[in-house]
Amino acid sequence: MPRDYDTTGIEHYEIASFTFQCGITLPLQVAYRRYNPSANKAILIPTCYGGLINNTFAFTSVLASYHIIVVAMLGAGESSSPSNDPNFPSSLSYIDCINSQHLLLQHLHIKQLEAVIGFSMGGQQAYYWAALHGSSPSNLFVKSIVPICSSARTSGHNYAFLEGPFSALEISHDYAGGSCYEKAVKPVEGLRAFGRAYAAWLTSPAWFAQELWRSWGFTSLKDYLHPPPGKGSFENDDGRDLLVTGRMWQRGDIGEVAKDGNYETVMKGIQARVLLLPCRTDQYFRWEDSEKEVDLLKDGKCAVIESIWGHVAGGGVVEEDTKWMEEQLEKFLQV
Amino acid sequence: MPRDYDTTGIEHYEIASFTFQCGITLPLQVAYRRYNPSANKAILIPTCYGGLINNTFAFTSVLASYHIIVVAMLGAGESSSPSNDPNFPSSLSYIDCINSQHLLLQHLHIKQLEAVIGFSMGGQQAYYWAALHGSSPSNLFVKSIVPICSSARTSGHNYAFLEGPFSALEISHDYAGGSCYEKAVKPVEGLRAFGRAYAAWLTSPAWFAQELWRSWGFTSLKDYLHPPPGKGSFENDDGRDLLVTGRMWQRGDIGEVAKDGNYETVMKGIQARVLLLPCRTDQYFRWEDSEKEVDLLKDGKCAVIESIWGHVAGGGVVEEDTKWMEEQLEKFLQV
Repeated sequence: MPRDYDTTGIEHYEIASFTFQCGITLPLQVAYRRYNPSANKAILIPTCYGGLINNTFAFTSVLASYHIIVVAMLGAGESSSPSNDPNFPSSLSYIDCINSQHLLLQHLHIKQLEAVIGFSMGGQQAYYWAALHGSSPSNLFVKSIVPICSSARTSGHNYAFLEGPFSALEISHDYAGGSCYEKAVKPVEGLRAFGRAYAAWLTSPAWFAQELWRSWGFTSLKDYLHPPPGKGSFENDDGRDLLVTGRMWQRGDIGEVAKDGNYETVMKGIQARVLLLPCRTDQYFRWEDSEKEVDLLKDGKCAVIESIWGHVAGGGVVEEDTKWMEEQLEKFLQV
Repeated sequence: MPRDYDTTGIEHYEIASFTFQCGITLPLQVAYRRYNPSANKAILIPTCYGGLINNTFAFTSVLASYHIIVVAMLGAGESSSPSNDPNFPSSLSYIDCINSQHLLLQHLHIKQLEAVIGFSMGGQQAYYWAALHGSSPSNLFVKSIVPICSSARTSGHNYAFLEGPFSALEISHDYAGGSCYEKAVKPVEGLRAFGRAYAAWLTSPAWFAQELWRSWGFTSLKDYLHPPPGKGSFENDDGRDLLVTGRMWQRGDIGEVAKDGNYETVMKGIQARVLLLPCRTDQYFRWEDSEKEVDLLKDGKCAVIESIWGHVAGGGVVEEDTKWMEEQLEKFLQV
């Protein structure tokens, strides 16, 4: 965790024995934060890649009447992860994440979710929630999902893009094949290279043309890509966590919840209502793919965020886009 | 050079003393190949990033009646480069490339070029040719240029994307801060990581969705990104050459030929005819930018390659796209 890690409101649920999809059984810890826990209707918001509970946009204004639970994805540093448990498996599945969150919700006596809302990998978790607990007409634990800048399965292009930053870290001199962590050395150069290999994907060509990195306080593109020590994107993340969650992202495909692994069958079986909010300029979770997903869904709708912030538009950091998403979400939940 | 380097038809022109833009003066070697040298009308084709003379598509079918000169960009391994001259400057400019090619053409007694045709960085060289020798109405050395999947200045997004592969190589354990070459060790892992950080940019999301890496002989996406030893893209390139030419690409801006550095003034001053052939799905040289360039040009036309091969579509390796480009080129040169 970064030195200035914000623990405000964060709780932990201990699971004495949890069996991962890969077969490993361990005691597990799930980190979460609740807003307005006395409300009747509950909404779950899983974190995204590199995200922390307290920098996850939780829609607390428009969801003021709901009990919101923000839950940390397994492997991402707050819940059990490679960085805090040496026995953590090297191969993680979204099914593990959903199983851990389901146990948390049982512990919190939550009988039904009005919605699972998630950005990016959070949206993929929302899809897995719908596949696992929102596909039985007689027992709809999840009534609806809102995947933002996300997808039900990771595209080949998205897989390939991720291989870039992963490779940059993995072959870096200070990561040293992973042995850096045995010596308690942080692979700063490898992590900063990871961030640079990620940087052009994060937003959009138009965002760069308008030099919107200035809005993040940088005075040149070079400075944005080579920020001061300690300020690089992903520089304060744990490389092991980035790799285990990133590999899960690459393998993401809700088809895996079906015996035959058939993606289309699982998509068509989803009974929960679905609102997809892709961004027009997202370079890896493409709006075209979201529109194709709607064709397979029983009750799916797609509304495209018209923004030049690319993937970032869905993360709650762009005021105008966030306001628009809030309006879409309010309308969707009123039904 | 790779072990199976094809020397067919390659000639070398030695310049006794050449002064680079950075101020360094050196003897210089320019590598080139001529097709049909007895023809009256000449066309110049500079190589692209990572390209070699004999894998450069030279349009020899449709340009059968022309004297074609394919010339190796400085720094790229065939002409003088960091890999073959320890005194080669660390900072290279497109102006240096054009100056070296201009001297070659004088040596070959070529008085005028019907066209400079170039793909990618070759297209940027074509633009620099037009800026330097195709902007005087009374002395039009370059009559026309055809930049394919290229631009007159490198966009911020393109700059940022390149920083990914460069970073992957530069922080790799075997590149070792550049000292590998002092020890005559090839940074194989660093170069392979470079290729992986480049891979998702090269083609397009639709190309990955259709698994067109199969057409290159790979049976899985993972194999495409982790090919057998010796078969990685860029694995057989020299890291020093990739970096010096790549940094030139990042700085590419024909504005630099003007005293005031004004890009628009230089664009508006170009008297040569211009045909731009961007690809609809190119992720870094965007067709939208090519259309904006046409607005600034006196006699510019843009025709978009409708292909899902992304940037690669312009490289002459996709039969259908190549045929279409040949038709455009023929029409353009007939005027």
